[in-house]
Amino acid sequence: MNKAILDVQNIATFGLGSMGYGIATSAVRGGHKVWGVDVNPDHMTQFLSEGGQSSPLAEVTDALDVVIIAVLNAAQTEMVLFGDHGIAAKLPKGAAVLACATVPPLFAKEMAARCEAVGVLYLDAPISGGSVKAALGNLSIMASGTPEAFAAMQPVLDCIAETVFSLGHDVGAGSAMKAVNQLLAGVHIAAMAEALTFGMTQGVTPEKFVEVISKCAGTSWMLENRAPHIIAGDYTPQSSVNIWPKDLGIVLEIAKDARFTAPIATAALQQFTAAAAMGLGGEDDAAVAKVYARNVGLTLPGEA
Amino acid sequence: MNKAILDVQNIATFGLGSMGYGIATSAVRGGHKVWGVDVNPDHMTQFLSEGGQSSPLAEVTDALDVVIIAVLNAAQTEMVLFGDHGIAAKLPKGAAVLACATVPPLFAKEMAARCEAVGVLYLDAPISGGSVKAALGNLSIMASGTPEAFAAMQPVLDCIAETVFSLGHDVGAGSAMKAVNQLLAGVHIAAMAEALTFGMTQGVTPEKFVEVISKCAGTSWMLENRAPHIIAGDYTPQSSVNIWPKDLGIVLEIAKDARFTAPIATAALQQFTAAAAMGLGGEDDAAVAKVYARNVGLTLPGEA
Repeated sequence: MNKAILDVQNIATFGLGSMGYGIATSAVRGGHKVWGVDVNPDHMTQFLSEGGQSSPLAEVTDALDVVIIAVLNAAQTEMVLFGDHGIAAKLPKGAAVLACATVPPLFAKEMAARCEAVGVLYLDAPISGGSVKAALGNLSIMASGTPEAFAAMQPVLDCIAETVFSLGHDVGAGSAMKAVNQLLAGVHIAAMAEALTFGMTQGVTPEKFVEVISKCAGTSWMLENRAPHIIAGDYTPQSSVNIWPKDLGIVLEIAKDARFTAPIATAALQQFTAAAAMGLGGEDDAAVAKVYARNVGLTLPGEA
Repeated sequence: MNKAILDVQNIATFGLGSMGYGIATSAVRGGHKVWGVDVNPDHMTQFLSEGGQSSPLAEVTDALDVVIIAVLNAAQTEMVLFGDHGIAAKLPKGAAVLACATVPPLFAKEMAARCEAVGVLYLDAPISGGSVKAALGNLSIMASGTPEAFAAMQPVLDCIAETVFSLGHDVGAGSAMKAVNQLLAGVHIAAMAEALTFGMTQGVTPEKFVEVISKCAGTSWMLENRAPHIIAGDYTPQSSVNIWPKDLGIVLEIAKDARFTAPIATAALQQFTAAAAMGLGGEDDAAVAKVYARNVGLTLPGEA
């Protein structure tokens, strides 16, 4: 019993979007005290109703054990830590940051160095798995950082992650692996959409496509996960189209800095950009199929 | 016993390359009489040593039950059936053709109609699985054709295939599904190579790449199958680079006829074309990674 009490962490979670909300509620279920911060007041209210702490975060900043940053990108991550109201300098020595956004590895290194300068531990910890797994506390985390940062974060990782890939002590390794994963994940979603709609032009129904290809060499995790959304005509966002111009943009930014040419990722990015331009940014990323369907004049399942 | 004897088929197999050889020897092991035909005399000699029939094929043409065509493409398929020495008109009524090459669906329809005109059954039956599965009699076959064609082919399918996808009575449906599968398979191989080498520029080793990504949303059947070849530095062709300019070429030819734009398949094709231009056409298709490595100045495992 004492151990459980001693392990209770004071946690601030920045970003209560679909991923951050699942992380924060998983931490609540783990018995921790969690303060949520989000620009959307509805998210804040909902989180309070699910066990979030209601006292002002400012009153407990110097008693926080962990800061989870589950925001959109590098700029927001930097703002949370070092912006005008940045939290890093207000944290107690030895507090630890879990940085979950997909960011360039060099940015992660920079954040870690600036945190270290104020006595704060930093775990480079991009997440994978989508909102459903986030809600269940079953995320995959690609983590890199010092042994001290891993140790400080363990009680939180135990609540929010099913799998933690320990990618070494060098901050940036987690973000590098995440970029590699996002390159493939984005390409595979768009390729699934390309192949499914191509098949429709040849008389292959979406149902038959999934039935056969999921058992053949052409399958992918994303195909099996996302193609059913197209068959159901259900584009409720589990992961939205808007993720991909952002994440593939980060991939290609990192690639350009390394003078690495990534023509397939580039082609996939164009399709997600076109989907966003069609006003589909907030839909499930399987909606990239609508770009192909529009271009060739196909009607997808569930469409008028 | 009588049943086994009655089920013995007289089979001609055209094409004793890596796929055709596995098919032909699987049929031999199934107890059938199999005549092999290949432009390479070494393949013919080797097949005789593994139970192929040595009598001249011309002497038994009018007693064949099945003709398996495991050649490179549509042109070779047409030559086997209807070329100057084409076999179709010499076959007995009710003989059945198993057409295994990746071809446009419209070509398959045309071949089936011409076969029907001379009383020959035609199964549109592209194969998937690679040379290892072919040798084991464990291919996947995407088949379409009349119930009579399926019935006539059953004793052969039993020997050579683990999975037969029955895609309906309309010839062309098998070839359409194969084209869809090849689009994805080709894209996934090239995307794997792109992501693996991109990762190397970020300090992600190929070993760590496979270890982590194979458990994440970025994985694909091809990634798990082909990336180990790169780690081993072993480009012994299980499926060669040269397959992909051909098969993705067919995909894009069909796509163009349907006015379907396939930018991701197009990008992947460029990478295989570049690999062929580097003289890698005969290597395992995982060698497409060498295009990326050369472009950015990386050294892959096993390279000097």
